[in-house]
Amino acid sequence: MASTTSTPCKLALVQLAVTADKEANLANARTHVLQAASNGANLIVLPECFNSPYGTNFFPEYAETLKDGPSVKALSSMAKDANAFLIGGSIPERDPTDNKIYNTCTVYNPKGEIIGTHRKVHLFDIDVPGKIRFQESETLTAGNQLTQVDTDFGKIGVGICYDIRFPEPAMIAARQGCFAMIYPGAFNMTTGPLHWELLQRARAVDNQMFVAACSPARDLTAGYHAWGHSTIVGPDGLVLQTTDEKQSIIYAELDRTKMNEFRQSIPLTNQRRFDLYADVSKVNP
Amino acid sequence: MASTTSTPCKLALVQLAVTADKEANLANARTHVLQAASNGANLIVLPECFNSPYGTNFFPEYAETLKDGPSVKALSSMAKDANAFLIGGSIPERDPTDNKIYNTCTVYNPKGEIIGTHRKVHLFDIDVPGKIRFQESETLTAGNQLTQVDTDFGKIGVGICYDIRFPEPAMIAARQGCFAMIYPGAFNMTTGPLHWELLQRARAVDNQMFVAACSPARDLTAGYHAWGHSTIVGPDGLVLQTTDEKQSIIYAELDRTKMNEFRQSIPLTNQRRFDLYADVSKVNP
Repeated sequence: MASTTSTPCKLALVQLAVTADKEANLANARTHVLQAASNGANLIVLPECFNSPYGTNFFPEYAETLKDGPSVKALSSMAKDANAFLIGGSIPERDPTDNKIYNTCTVYNPKGEIIGTHRKVHLFDIDVPGKIRFQESETLTAGNQLTQVDTDFGKIGVGICYDIRFPEPAMIAARQGCFAMIYPGAFNMTTGPLHWELLQRARAVDNQMFVAACSPARDLTAGYHAWGHSTIVGPDGLVLQTTDEKQSIIYAELDRTKMNEFRQSIPLTNQRRFDLYADVSKVNP
Repeated sequence: MASTTSTPCKLALVQLAVTADKEANLANARTHVLQAASNGANLIVLPECFNSPYGTNFFPEYAETLKDGPSVKALSSMAKDANAFLIGGSIPERDPTDNKIYNTCTVYNPKGEIIGTHRKVHLFDIDVPGKIRFQESETLTAGNQLTQVDTDFGKIGVGICYDIRFPEPAMIAARQGCFAMIYPGAFNMTTGPLHWELLQRARAVDNQMFVAACSPARDLTAGYHAWGHSTIVGPDGLVLQTTDEKQSIIYAELDRTKMNEFRQSIPLTNQRRFDLYADVSKVNP
């Protein structure tokens, strides 16, 4: 692949059916990643927590290291065999240096090399009375950096699920040259219908960039019911592609020429009043 | 009125039919503001450019000073007679000190005193080929400050129309204690269906605050066709009340207790990672 931002980018979101069997999850992920690649995708995304059930009790049990764990090996091999960039959803990661557990996304180039790692920086701790209570922080530790990766198509920002509720990572990514923000995520039956699509469209329209969020398929036999509805949004804030709650793959071409045309027609980029408010992409905390 | 944030706030958006007759516009505004008050509204909003047709050629012709112009006098009197806070839409304002023209919102307390003035800080300069080209900057000058006003209900942030495309003023307002952002605005038949509601919902969900935008009614005999659809959004990002394109008034109670409950259930306020990105409300540009 030529290292130029004019390389056409065909994105695939794999809305995977996740089970309690890690080996089966990895095999299923491989099948779908290769299928996406055979359909022309060169940027493929897996969902949050694709190798493990989603639950604070499961994270310690399924956690593995990035150095020696089976999931990173499997992902690297998938990326290479698919000859595609792979945003490998997320896995419960155990860091051997501090023995803490993170919700971690690893990103691979078509050679199977890791080109980026994102540890979820905003943990999912919410309590909507009578609807859903979930506290990732019971077993997880938050990461300490925002993440952008370089691909043949240009720079991409990566967040995980709850990270999307916070506008700054996408604002910073767009202003630093990313053309897309991609979030493996697993909203639920309360927050999904409320905010899943809205948040993606908000990030897209405010930053005039592509935004995609990739969910696991819904499993009503599991403890956590994912909303599904993996979605790809264009820089104009309109939904390019979405799906229901079942296992599936959705595709869209991320056309940066159209993005740039849209940015010219509504030229927010040149109109921000950084004399009245700071540019969060240029100020250190 | 007691000066306490526990005072119930009943918001009314007056989607006014605007004509080329300034005097008639002021009279029509007065009728509707008093009607809203008689229905219990104690915070009343008029649309952008409610006293003048919307167009760069009209702004110089209709412009008046805040000190001596008829519109400020009329608005002050309306607020007093309605015994309500009034966010007086916007008017083309001529500043006698520099002879420049601004798109300016004046805000009144129930005594008819001006408690805040917002000059649109992001001018509406867009060019969507084949759809709409509009350049406010041909005759208008942009303001140089963000605006928040103190009311009996708490602090409110004020922007005008295109200001809503920029996330920072709402982020700053919410973090500095405002419970609502209110935008007199006049989106059009291209940007209205695309982004009017999305932008309001985006500001609301990201900042867990009330957001409202008040448009003129649509006049197909005018040069600029406003989208209408004045809308009030809750802190959960859901539309509380909206309307079509015709002249009308919409109402909603802005319940800050429910807002605070929602903020507790999804506690973004305490979860922001200001160790990883700057807090735009605390950094000077």
